[in-house]
Amino acid sequence: MKIKHLAGLSALLPLAACSQKAPQQQPNIIFFLVDDFGWVDSSVQYGDELYPNNLRFNTPNMQRLSERSTVFGNAYACAVSTPTRTSIMTGMNAAHTRITNWTSAVRDTPSDATGGGFWMAEHSGSGDALAGDVLSRPDWNINGISPVPGVPHTQYANSLVQYLKDAGYFTIHVGKAHWASAGTPGVNAYNHGFCVNIAGTMAGMPRDYSGLKNYGNTKERWNDFAVQNLTEYYGTETHLTEALTKEALKTLDYPIKHGQPFYLYLASYATHTPIQPDERFAQKYRDAGMDEGQAAYASLVEGVDVSLGEVLDFLDEKGIADNTVIIFMTDNGGNSENIQKGGIPHTQNKPLREGKGSNYEGGIRVPLMIYYPGKTKAWKCDVPVICEDMFPTILDIAGIRGWKAVQDVDGQSILPLVIGGREGPSPERPLVFHYPHKWKPYDLEDIDFLSAVRVGEWKLVYRIIDGALAVSAGSEEERAAARERALELYNLSADIGEENNLASEYPEKTAELARVLSERLRAWDAVMPVVVATGKPAPLPDEI
Amino acid sequence: MKIKHLAGLSALLPLAACSQKAPQQQPNIIFFLVDDFGWVDSSVQYGDELYPNNLRFNTPNMQRLSERSTVFGNAYACAVSTPTRTSIMTGMNAAHTRITNWTSAVRDTPSDATGGGFWMAEHSGSGDALAGDVLSRPDWNINGISPVPGVPHTQYANSLVQYLKDAGYFTIHVGKAHWASAGTPGVNAYNHGFCVNIAGTMAGMPRDYSGLKNYGNTKERWNDFAVQNLTEYYGTETHLTEALTKEALKTLDYPIKHGQPFYLYLASYATHTPIQPDERFAQKYRDAGMDEGQAAYASLVEGVDVSLGEVLDFLDEKGIADNTVIIFMTDNGGNSENIQKGGIPHTQNKPLREGKGSNYEGGIRVPLMIYYPGKTKAWKCDVPVICEDMFPTILDIAGIRGWKAVQDVDGQSILPLVIGGREGPSPERPLVFHYPHKWKPYDLEDIDFLSAVRVGEWKLVYRIIDGALAVSAGSEEERAAARERALELYNLSADIGEENNLASEYPEKTAELARVLSERLRAWDAVMPVVVATGKPAPLPDEI
Repeated sequence: MKIKHLAGLSALLPLAACSQKAPQQQPNIIFFLVDDFGWVDSSVQYGDELYPNNLRFNTPNMQRLSERSTVFGNAYACAVSTPTRTSIMTGMNAAHTRITNWTSAVRDTPSDATGGGFWMAEHSGSGDALAGDVLSRPDWNINGISPVPGVPHTQYANSLVQYLKDAGYFTIHVGKAHWASAGTPGVNAYNHGFCVNIAGTMAGMPRDYSGLKNYGNTKERWNDFAVQNLTEYYGTETHLTEALTKEALKTLDYPIKHGQPFYLYLASYATHTPIQPDERFAQKYRDAGMDEGQAAYASLVEGVDVSLGEVLDFLDEKGIADNTVIIFMTDNGGNSENIQKGGIPHTQNKPLREGKGSNYEGGIRVPLMIYYPGKTKAWKCDVPVICEDMFPTILDIAGIRGWKAVQDVDGQSILPLVIGGREGPSPERPLVFHYPHKWKPYDLEDIDFLSAVRVGEWKLVYRIIDGALAVSAGSEEERAAARERALELYNLSADIGEENNLASEYPEKTAELARVLSERLRAWDAVMPVVVATGKPAPLPDEI
Repeated sequence: MKIKHLAGLSALLPLAACSQKAPQQQPNIIFFLVDDFGWVDSSVQYGDELYPNNLRFNTPNMQRLSERSTVFGNAYACAVSTPTRTSIMTGMNAAHTRITNWTSAVRDTPSDATGGGFWMAEHSGSGDALAGDVLSRPDWNINGISPVPGVPHTQYANSLVQYLKDAGYFTIHVGKAHWASAGTPGVNAYNHGFCVNIAGTMAGMPRDYSGLKNYGNTKERWNDFAVQNLTEYYGTETHLTEALTKEALKTLDYPIKHGQPFYLYLASYATHTPIQPDERFAQKYRDAGMDEGQAAYASLVEGVDVSLGEVLDFLDEKGIADNTVIIFMTDNGGNSENIQKGGIPHTQNKPLREGKGSNYEGGIRVPLMIYYPGKTKAWKCDVPVICEDMFPTILDIAGIRGWKAVQDVDGQSILPLVIGGREGPSPERPLVFHYPHKWKPYDLEDIDFLSAVRVGEWKLVYRIIDGALAVSAGSEEERAAARERALELYNLSADIGEENNLASEYPEKTAELARVLSERLRAWDAVMPVVVATGKPAPLPDEI
C-alpha cells in the first residue's frame, strides 16, 4: 500500500475495460452518507442501550436496514465534514492528508474562524486571528484533495472512485461533495472517477432545502451554496432530500439495464444547517412538544429516512437488492452548537459529550451500518472503526485486489467484521483525531484545537491550547497548570460521556497514549497551529 | 411513425439492455450543435461561392471536418433556439410541437416580447401586448417539451435520446439544453434519456463566458442563466467553451473503456449573446480592423472551432475516429439584430436576408455537415433538409429500426443523402417555418410574426400582421393593400437574398405555396397570434 509517486492509475489498473462483459459478479455498492447526523438521532441503537434522544426520531427505514446489517457501535468520523469525506476518498487519516478542517467554497481561503464575522455570512473569514491569543491557524491543505499533483494546498491522491470505475463500476455522485474548493481539480467529481455527478460542488451546505426557493438559486438568496442540477424542481414543494433521491434513482437506470455494477455515493445535504423544517413531516414533532428547531431537525432526519426507504424499495423493485451492498454512515457527529437546532446547546448528542467540531465523542462517534446481502452477519460490532477504513473496505467489497496508490493508505478493510469473521482490525488499533482549528468566531472550549486518540477502551484528549501554554506561558506555575490541563484520559467502556478525566489517576496510560498520538502525528507530518508567543508550531503531546 | 398514446417506451423497446455485450457495432455519434452561429460565419463554404463574410473567420477545424463531410448547402433550423432544439429531440416541426418561441427560464411565463422592458434584463416580460396594436401572442407551448404527459403548455413526446439509451448508447448532454422551463420535467436531461448531464438547464444563454466571473455564479452577476457544473474553473481564465469541451471529453472515458457506443450532444453556449471577447483569440481580429463587437464575435467563433478540433483530435488519439459520426449544426441563423455583435445590424448574414428570429433565410438557413466515417460521400448536398430530420437521421445512423413514438414524427432521415445515394428526402419536399411571435420590445418588421414555406427553389413568406390586417383593417382599401403585402414569393435559386418579391408575377405559385403552408399549419393545429380587432386567431395564408 506504499508505492508513491506513480504517474497515474491507468498503467497500474488495466483491469475491467472490455473485460466487463460477463454476467455481473461484483456487487453494487450504495454509500448513503448523511450529514451532521448524530449517533443518537434515530431509533437505531448504536450504543449499549437506547438513550432518551433515540426516542425522539421516527426512522423506520434505518431500523429496517439495521435489522439486517452489521451495526457498528464504535464507528468514527472526523469532527467536521471535509476531513471525513476526503478520508473516505483517499483512505488516509485527516491528520495525514493535512485536510483537517472544512474547505471553503473559494480557493485559497482558510475556513479557520477568526474573531470577526460569522462564517455563514458569506464566505468564511480568513486570517490568522486566534482563540485566546494563544494559537493561530496551521498551514493545512485548505484547498482539499486533488486528483492531480502540484495543486497548492491540496493532498494529491488516487481516489477510491477511480479504482471502482477502472474495475468496471458505473460510478455516481449525488448530493454533497465538499472535498475541495472551487477553482481546483479536486472540486470536480468527474476528475475523481465519477461517471455522473449531480449536485456535488464546493458547497458544504445547501443554500436552501426548499424547491420553492429553488434550493437557493434566486437572486435574493444566491450564494456559493445554492444547489446545482435540480432545475426540474424549481418552484415546487420538492424538498432537497427528495429531489436528490429521485435524481439518484434515475441515474441507476443505465447500469441496471446493462448489468454493470454501480457505485452510488448518495450524500444528502441533510441534516446540515440551515435547519429548515421539512413540512412533509415537521408538524407531528411540533405536536409532540418539540420546539421549532427540534421539530425542524427531526423532520430533516425523517426526510433522510424516507430517502433511504425509497432507495431500499427501488432495489427490491428492480430485483437487485440481493446484489447491492448498503453502507450507511454520517460524516461527523450531530451539531450540538447551532441554536437553529433548538433544545439545549451542547446536549443533543447525550450521552456523548459535545458534538460536531469536537473530538469528544459527540463530534466523532457516528452511525455506521453495512449490509452485504448473503454475507453480512447481522450483529452489533463494537470494534472501533474509522472513516478512512471505507476506502479499503469498499475496494474489498468490490473484489479489487492488488491496488496501488500514490498515497499511503491508513485505513483497514472492515469487511471481515461485516461478514462476522474473527479477522479484521484489532480492537486495540489506535484511532487518531486531529482538529487544530478554531471553529467559530467565538471560543468553544470543548471544540477548538483538540486532538485525540482512542486505543481500545481508552481515549486521550489533547487540548492544544493548553499544550501551547505549557511551553509558552509566562510563569512556571502557569506552564505547570497548563501541562496539567493539556491531557485528559477517559475510559470509554465505563464513561462514554467522557466526564471523568483519569489522567492523574493513570499517568502511565496517559503518557502511553500521548506517545502513540504524537508518533502518529509526527509520522504524518501533521499540521499544528502556531503558538503566537513563540511563532513555532504547538508542541505534540509528548513534547510538553 | 404514427402510433399515438402509448404508455411509454420501455415496453416497446426492450432492445439493448443486456444484449450490449458483443463488440461495439453501433457507431458513436457526436452532435456538435452551435448556438446563433450563422451560415457565413466560418471559412466553410455552404453556399455556391465564398462570400465576403466567410473571409472574416478563422475556422480551420470546421474546414478540416468539411473536407471529409457531406456539407449541406440548404439546411434549415427554426428562427430561434428552443424550437430547433425541441424539434431535434422530437422529430416534429416546431409548428407541430407548438413550441414556436424560446422557453423562459421560469415556468408558465411566455417569452413573447411586449412593448415594455428588454427581455435580457431579468426574466422576459409576459403579457398580451402587441406589434402595431394588431396581434397579441398565441397560446403556444410556453413550457417546452415534456417526457411525460399532462404537463400544462408542453408537447409530450418520446425523446430521440431515450431511444438511443434504450438501444445501448451511453448518452451525454453537455452545454445548453433549453428545451423547457425550470420546474417542469422537460428541463431535466435525465428525464429525456441522458445518462449524464453537464450544464444543461432552462438557460438559453450563459450569464457569463468567463471563468473569472464563475460563468455568472457570483452574487453580483447571478441570474437563472448562470452556468452550472463548472466549479473546477471558477476564478480561472478558462473560457466557457473550453470548459464544456474538457468536461465533455471526460465523460467519454466510461463508454470508450467499456466499448459501448456513445451519443454526445455537445451544445456550446457560444456564440449566443453576451458577445464577450474570448481573449485567447480576440486581439488578432481587432488587429485586422474589426470593431470590438465583430472581434468579440469572431473570437467566440474561433473558440467553437478550437473546441471542435479538440474533439476531433481526441477521437484520433483514442482510436475511435473511424467509428464516430460527427454532426455539426447550428440552432438558428446568426444574430443580425444585436448591437453587441458590432458591424452594421441586419447585414451580418449577407448574402442572406436578416438573421436570428426571422423566417427569411438569414434566420433559418444554417451550417450543417455530417461525417460518417467510411460511409460519407464527401460532397456538397443542396437538397433542402431541416432540423426535425435529425431525429430519424440519428436513429437511422444508430441502426435503430421499427421505433414507435407517441408523437407523429415529421422529419425524414437524411442518411441516404450522407452516404451519397439517390434516395432520401425529395428536393421538392415542403419545409415549414412558423414564428407567430413578437421577438423584441420594439417592432422588427422582417422578424416578428412571419411564417414561411420552401418548396424546391421557391419560398413563400407570410407576413401574419398583414394577413390580420387583410381581414380586420377598417377600410376595403387598407384590407386590399394588406392582402397585397401579406404574401411574398422568392426564387431562392436566382435570388438567395430574397430581394425580389415575385408574388404578383407568379400568383399561381404564390397561391399554391400558400395552400401548402396553410394545409400544414392546419393539420398541425398550429398556434396563431390573436387579431386584436376581432379576438380571433390570425388567418392562415389561404384564408386572406
